[in-house]
Parts: sequence; C-alpha cells; structure tokens
Amino acid sequence: MRYAVLGTGIVGRTVAGKLVSLGHEVAIGTRDPEATLARTDPDSYGNPPIGPWLAEHLQVRLLDFADAAAFGESVVNTTAGAASLQALQAAGRDNLAGKVLLDIANPLDFSQGMPPSLDPVGTDSLGEQIQRAFPDVKVVKALNTMNSRVMVEPSRVPGEHHVFVSGDDADAKKLVIECLVDFGWPQQSVIDLGGISTARGTEMLLPLWLRLWGALGHADFNFHIQGARTAA
Amino acid sequence: MRYAVLGTGIVGRTVAGKLVSLGHEVAIGTRDPEATLARTDPDSYGNPPIGPWLAEHLQVRLLDFADAAAFGESVVNTTAGAASLQALQAAGRDNLAGKVLLDIANPLDFSQGMPPSLDPVGTDSLGEQIQRAFPDVKVVKALNTMNSRVMVEPSRVPGEHHVFVSGDDADAKKLVIECLVDFGWPQQSVIDLGGISTARGTEMLLPLWLRLWGALGHADFNFHIQGARTAA
Repeated sequence: MRYAVLGTGIVGRTVAGKLVSLGHEVAIGTRDPEATLARTDPDSYGNPPIGPWLAEHLQVRLLDFADAAAFGESVVNTTAGAASLQALQAAGRDNLAGKVLLDIANPLDFSQGMPPSLDPVGTDSLGEQIQRAFPDVKVVKALNTMNSRVMVEPSRVPGEHHVFVSGDDADAKKLVIECLVDFGWPQQSVIDLGGISTARGTEMLLPLWLRLWGALGHADFNFHIQGARTAA
Repeated sequence: MRYAVLGTGIVGRTVAGKLVSLGHEVAIGTRDPEATLARTDPDSYGNPPIGPWLAEHLQVRLLDFADAAAFGESVVNTTAGAASLQALQAAGRDNLAGKVLLDIANPLDFSQGMPPSLDPVGTDSLGEQIQRAFPDVKVVKALNTMNSRVMVEPSRVPGEHHVFVSGDDADAKKLVIECLVDFGWPQQSVIDLGGISTARGTEMLLPLWLRLWGALGHADFNFHIQGARTAA
C-alpha cells in the first residue's frame, strides 16, 4: 500500500521506516521539503536533521504535505499535535477525502512550562478536532500512548501490553488493526475503545506517561490493562 | 490506628470496612449524620442508603465531618471530587493539621453530560487543590485509578498490576504505602510518581478507565505498567 506519513520527527521516521520494511511505499510529508532538507541543527522539538536518515532510507520520498497526501492511499499523522490541524489543512481536503487517517499525535501544550499539558483536554480531543475538521476522512486514533520504538516493535516491552484504537468507522479501524498486527502487535493486544471521542481517554494518558518516564528512567514501558477479558 | 473516612459512598464504605477488618478504629464523616441516616433512597450518585451497611458494621461510627476528622489520626478522602474541598473545609483546618490525608477522590464533572469530564484537568488536579488549600496537611493521592473493590482486594484482578502514589511528604507516602501493603498490595506493585503534582496524571486516567469499563463490561481490571523495572 502507499502511505503518506505527515511529520518528519522521530515518530514519523520510525513509522515510515517500519512501513518501508514491510514492503509499503512511503512518502513523508513536510511543510517545505527544501527547508527541511537544508536543516543541519535539531529542530525546536529536538529532532536531529532528517537528511542523514533519508540517505539511509532512499525508498522514502520527502514531499510537501499536499503531494504526500495525494500520494498516500492511507495517511498517518505524526506531526506535533499543536501543528496537526494546520498540517492537514496544508495536505488538502481533496487529497485526504475518503482515506483512513491514523492519528498518532498528542496535543501537547508546552506553553504552560514543563512537563507539557494538553490542549484540548477534557471535553474534546485532537482526534475529534481532526474528525470534525475533515468529516470525509476516516480518523482512527492509535499508538499515541507509547514511545515510537515500542509502536513498531512491541516486543521491546516484555510481556503482554495493550494498544488502544478509537474511531467512528469500523472498516477504517479494521485496516488500522491489520497494520498494527503487521507491526508485531498480537490481535488480542488491541483494545477497541469505541468512537473517536474515546481518544480523549488515550490522549489523557500522556501526562501519566511522561511522569512514568521520569519515575522509571526509561521509555520501554507500556500500559497493560490487567483483567481485560474481552478485546477487539 | 484511628482513621477518619470522609464520605459515605461506596468507596468510603469499602475502605472503612477494610480498615475495620484490619483492626483499625474507623469513623465515617458526613455533612449531616442525621440526614444521612434518614435517607431511604439512593443519593444523587446512586449510592444505596448507608443505614443497612452501618447495621452490619457496628464498629464504624457515623460522625459529622469535623468530629470524624478530630477522631482520626489519619484521614481518607472518599467524597465526590466536586464536593471534596467543601467537605474538608467542614472537617476543619485544625482537625486536619499535621495529619496524613489519603486522597482517593477524582474531580469528576457531570455538568457536561456523560461520560463525566474532569475539573480541574490539565494544569491542576484535585490533589494539588487540596494540598494548596491545606498546606499543613500531608496529602497523598493513591487508589483513585481503580474500582473500590480492587482497592481493598487487589487479587480480584489476576496477575500483576499497579497502584500509583503522589505526594510531597516522603513519610506520609511511606505510611500510605504501608496501608496499601496491608490492603494486599505487594510492595513492588506500588509506583511512587513523585510530588503531588503528579496526581494530574493519575486523575486523568479516569476518562480512559470509564471507557474501558464500557468496552470491557466489568470493573475488575486495573492498569499495569509493563516494563516498569523500577518501583518505589
């Protein structure tokens, strides 16, 4: 399948690299490919420049958001949450219409200092904002509750642990779950929470995730729902 | 030890019953004991009247908030989160001063419809609000991330799973952790997240907890952090 991965950060690179290793065609989308390629310093989120990574992943094309979205049969949002709606607007309504959008972003808000908070939070979520802004897109929230290396290699964390899926379109969730299984997630490790509004619950895991990262001193952990007898 | 359990709902009854079974002296605190005892219908949170429960737990006294707090050497807050600060004001600053307050409440906000949201959320938490309002009290947030039956009988959920502890006072956390061990929690199942501000992370688990409750169809589940190699 052809995938557009929007966002050039570590999550985008990690997911794009995994998709390529599984035989998919992948374009990474960014606002301004020339400017992205010209970077030699880490960006404002601390990501090292993407040039050396692209040199090692020659199958992956770097395109602007619109060209990437047009290329992809499915789209993955790995942009910073605060920039996601803008990135998707740049990708273009027509280029996204009818497609499955796997939304991995979290709406982290750094404006209140560290650790970041969330915006929106509580009575809304980024997943819902995206679904409302792009009603023709089949938004599925998943993988946003863990480190990017765990997303594509769940066996980094020993034992059973869970990945949550939220979305209004049953077929889109099925496609995303097939993708998760390809990533190495056992079928029974997927918990389908329901509609896209349940993304509020998984986005709100981030504050605890960040504090656990601090308390444990490493990122190779994940949430497991002990006692979950039913799973999607 | 003498415990004051503030709140007459299911959480309060469950915790009070467990403390009594462990040999502690317990008073349950309520705003108006006579009115509480006069109830024959479920309250606005759906709790059945407490009279029959008290008849089966004759060791437990029902007192007003102030008398209960004065009685307790330690205090447990199980009131509805939206009413907690008011209940603690009624308990009285002098009756609480210097004591450990185990805060189990979550600031559920039913004003936006179901499922409830949280207020405060994001850049504040109920645990922090209580600590700011009562600087002489040693607030420890714990047990707020699970069903009340699991709190006092963790083996209801098979396998390993975690209980999180947040608080600014190390000795108070130590006392609460001893209480958790008495409740049946293995020492290694306790994760000390750090100061009371980390209660933001555990309170924000509730929206996911509520959705998991819906998706799984039962409440005998709990969060386990797979890959947590260090624990308090």
